[in-house]
Amino acid sequence: MTALEQLKNHLGEIHDLKNASHVLGWDQQTYMPSGGGEARAHAIGTLERLSHEKFASDDTARLLDAAERETQNLPPDSDEACLIRITRRDYEKSRKLPDEFVAAWARDAIRSNEVWRHARGANDFAAFQPHLEKMLDYARRQADYYGYEAHPYDALLDDYEPEMKTAQVREIFAELRREQVPLAQKWAQASAGRSDFLNREYSPQQQGEIGLRMAQAFGYDTARGRLDIAPHPFCTNFGRDDVRITTRYDKNQPAQAIFGIFHETGHALYEQNTAPALARTPLAAGASMMFHESQSRLWENIVGRSRALWQHFWPQFQAAFPHNLADVSAEEWYRAINRVESSLIRVEADEVTYNLHIMLRFDLEVAMLAGELEVRDLPEAWRAKMQEYFAMSPPDDRDGVMQDTHWSSGSFGYFPTYALGNLMSAQIWDTARAAAPGIGDELARGEFSTLRGWLCDNLYVHGRKFLPPELALKVTGRPLEAAPYLNYLKLKYNDLCGGDQ
Amino acid sequence: MTALEQLKNHLGEIHDLKNASHVLGWDQQTYMPSGGGEARAHAIGTLERLSHEKFASDDTARLLDAAERETQNLPPDSDEACLIRITRRDYEKSRKLPDEFVAAWARDAIRSNEVWRHARGANDFAAFQPHLEKMLDYARRQADYYGYEAHPYDALLDDYEPEMKTAQVREIFAELRREQVPLAQKWAQASAGRSDFLNREYSPQQQGEIGLRMAQAFGYDTARGRLDIAPHPFCTNFGRDDVRITTRYDKNQPAQAIFGIFHETGHALYEQNTAPALARTPLAAGASMMFHESQSRLWENIVGRSRALWQHFWPQFQAAFPHNLADVSAEEWYRAINRVESSLIRVEADEVTYNLHIMLRFDLEVAMLAGELEVRDLPEAWRAKMQEYFAMSPPDDRDGVMQDTHWSSGSFGYFPTYALGNLMSAQIWDTARAAAPGIGDELARGEFSTLRGWLCDNLYVHGRKFLPPELALKVTGRPLEAAPYLNYLKLKYNDLCGGDQ
Repeated sequence: MTALEQLKNHLGEIHDLKNASHVLGWDQQTYMPSGGGEARAHAIGTLERLSHEKFASDDTARLLDAAERETQNLPPDSDEACLIRITRRDYEKSRKLPDEFVAAWARDAIRSNEVWRHARGANDFAAFQPHLEKMLDYARRQADYYGYEAHPYDALLDDYEPEMKTAQVREIFAELRREQVPLAQKWAQASAGRSDFLNREYSPQQQGEIGLRMAQAFGYDTARGRLDIAPHPFCTNFGRDDVRITTRYDKNQPAQAIFGIFHETGHALYEQNTAPALARTPLAAGASMMFHESQSRLWENIVGRSRALWQHFWPQFQAAFPHNLADVSAEEWYRAINRVESSLIRVEADEVTYNLHIMLRFDLEVAMLAGELEVRDLPEAWRAKMQEYFAMSPPDDRDGVMQDTHWSSGSFGYFPTYALGNLMSAQIWDTARAAAPGIGDELARGEFSTLRGWLCDNLYVHGRKFLPPELALKVTGRPLEAAPYLNYLKLKYNDLCGGDQ
Repeated sequence: MTALEQLKNHLGEIHDLKNASHVLGWDQQTYMPSGGGEARAHAIGTLERLSHEKFASDDTARLLDAAERETQNLPPDSDEACLIRITRRDYEKSRKLPDEFVAAWARDAIRSNEVWRHARGANDFAAFQPHLEKMLDYARRQADYYGYEAHPYDALLDDYEPEMKTAQVREIFAELRREQVPLAQKWAQASAGRSDFLNREYSPQQQGEIGLRMAQAFGYDTARGRLDIAPHPFCTNFGRDDVRITTRYDKNQPAQAIFGIFHETGHALYEQNTAPALARTPLAAGASMMFHESQSRLWENIVGRSRALWQHFWPQFQAAFPHNLADVSAEEWYRAINRVESSLIRVEADEVTYNLHIMLRFDLEVAMLAGELEVRDLPEAWRAKMQEYFAMSPPDDRDGVMQDTHWSSGSFGYFPTYALGNLMSAQIWDTARAAAPGIGDELARGEFSTLRGWLCDNLYVHGRKFLPPELALKVTGRPLEAAPYLNYLKLKYNDLCGGDQ
């Protein structure tokens, strides 16, 4: 066996353990009976620990060294060279956090998350505060272990968006803030229209059927995937040939399930179309959170909330709910699902106000990491930021500073990737349409093969072969920018709101 | 940490890996999309290999030695002493088969099983023969690796029914054969009655609902379990608090799903009620195949096909299928589901003829292992045995010698446990009723708490603490015998067939 083959076997085994853990996680969220929780926590804990131990072991270093020597003359873009380069980077990171630190953090995070859930229900930030302080402390120590040049937040960001720097996010967000905050307020006033039909009673089964049928039209392959119900929708995969999505149904909010399905389908299309040659390696996955989110948002919003899509699918959609939609036109539906509204809650935000929620959190996270904001002052800082971005204030901490789960388990640095994903979705969309101008016409015919094919060939197929900045250049020819997204919003919402273009 | 705690941690981790593998197996049979097979095979293979490696390691020996020294003064029936004794036995066995042997066998077994599936479809024994010869050779070598005193078949039997010997099975089966073969023929002629309603069209959903409701009445806890659909029904568990059953539905054969659910419920009740203190150890499981089958058969047949049960549940059952059963009485249903009929296929056999199918296979297995029967002569030997036991012959090898999957992957020694389980079911039933005479009355009221409570306290709670011969004495006061089952059959079927008692 060559050194490369040995390395691949080793990584394949680690991949298997992670896959198994993902299956257990999927089952836990979908079908596991309530009694199964304790044994499941043990099993997932053991799988995660073993896969981490195996990966962060001296064996990995030895196999990597040997494979590096063996493959040094391969082209740098070859699967093999990329595998070794990315694995080397992952490996170096995996060695930086001491095992005891990770174990203590994981333990305290479970407790903190529990306290958060109760404190949120009771609107009691004071009860949560000491746990959040502890989680912030873990995040600071994590940054110290990883090391950083300019800002401790850089170290955290890198876990979710490799090579992204705080300064770059700041710069992009500044441009976004300047334009998007006033636009959101302007469009929120102008986009009000009929939307009564969005809250009629829609059969959950029909919601799932039509949602999945449209996802299949996008290209989601249900011979290599399936749709189930979960309280918090997600996409997970066990290799590229078993990529599952979930959604939740509220009979009075069909848009939640439909666009939830589109969103997860975007993630799923990415995972289903990484190159088969990368299977069972660390490269068989999306490149980063930003790139993943770019695809969920592209399919959910740019495609999924487009006028062309709904004009084509309207007869089918109407037929699925004849009692609810007989008196509704495609244009009315299109306007209702694109209504802009300032709101308290991130996960309910429309595509115009969503980034504002993210920028708010980013500002606060960076300030906390830098020691410029104390946890005890966070609720007040939240309210001030809400005024700045939305000109409104939450009535309580429940729907204010305690609304998201992320901080409760110490995930700082995750939020920005949602907004960066939105930006990247438009940048990729522009590139794809410039390269394959037929995409728009196809969309209006309910066809997606040119768009999907372009995304497969130019993005999905690469998996994790390239770091995000390289990949951005490879796919779009430019680094990440705010302009394409802002232009996309202006074009769409100036039309919708009757403004100038 | 004490040596015992260290051992338990080590075994707990192995338990977690096996649990994970079982979840993956459950998912594969129930919800996995067809594309997921290849990655799943890798993941299960890795989990099985790692759990075996960890268990058969020198670490286990070292931890066992230390824990043995530490616990030598504990009562021999204590959880700790039993854990060490049973683990020591498992460990010694795990070291006897060389890894390369097991790996080669597993590889060839997959191929052999594939060939069998095709050969069976094509009724082509000649295509299967070389693979079966290879599997028999693996079984012989397995017996040699394990070692044996009287007969190579002893070594194989021990994998499924620890401490059981070929000679003992022979003796018990001889008694069974003498009585059961003529009784089966007599009752087959006498038990014919109305059964047209068994093949009407029954909604699969209703079959599942009423079946599960009855299973819950038996005591199956669906907060710690669930019922799903699988092509080959089974019970699996991931700890005592997540014990799942599956069944399959044929709209024209409701009895298949109903009694399938009862059967798997018997297995599930056993697993759900092992002592919580045994959780995450090798003792958290049924004691052996025979004991497990004794519970599936007790709940499927002795309880599930009893007149008292159906008299109580008939109004509910009838109401679940008002269009099908309005013209059927509880007694007619009872007689139809207990009809005795000689048939070619084991899995479709009634409770009177079932053991005959098993004895036939046992005779052939033992003869093959002893070198007294060549694989090439097996189809002819099968036909001869069918004449001996059933006075009939299969029209082809498809429904003859090739009907079961077991041999195709080298599982020799498994079949007898089905019949031994039948015998043990009656022996336990007699003991339970003698100890708690109210059981019969409760059953007629659709209540099962006394029976279930007795089984929990006297059998289920022990898990794998005791070897089957010890457990038989502990539970029933006697070694395994044929008489209780024969008496049970005579009492039931002489009544049904109008014979003498």
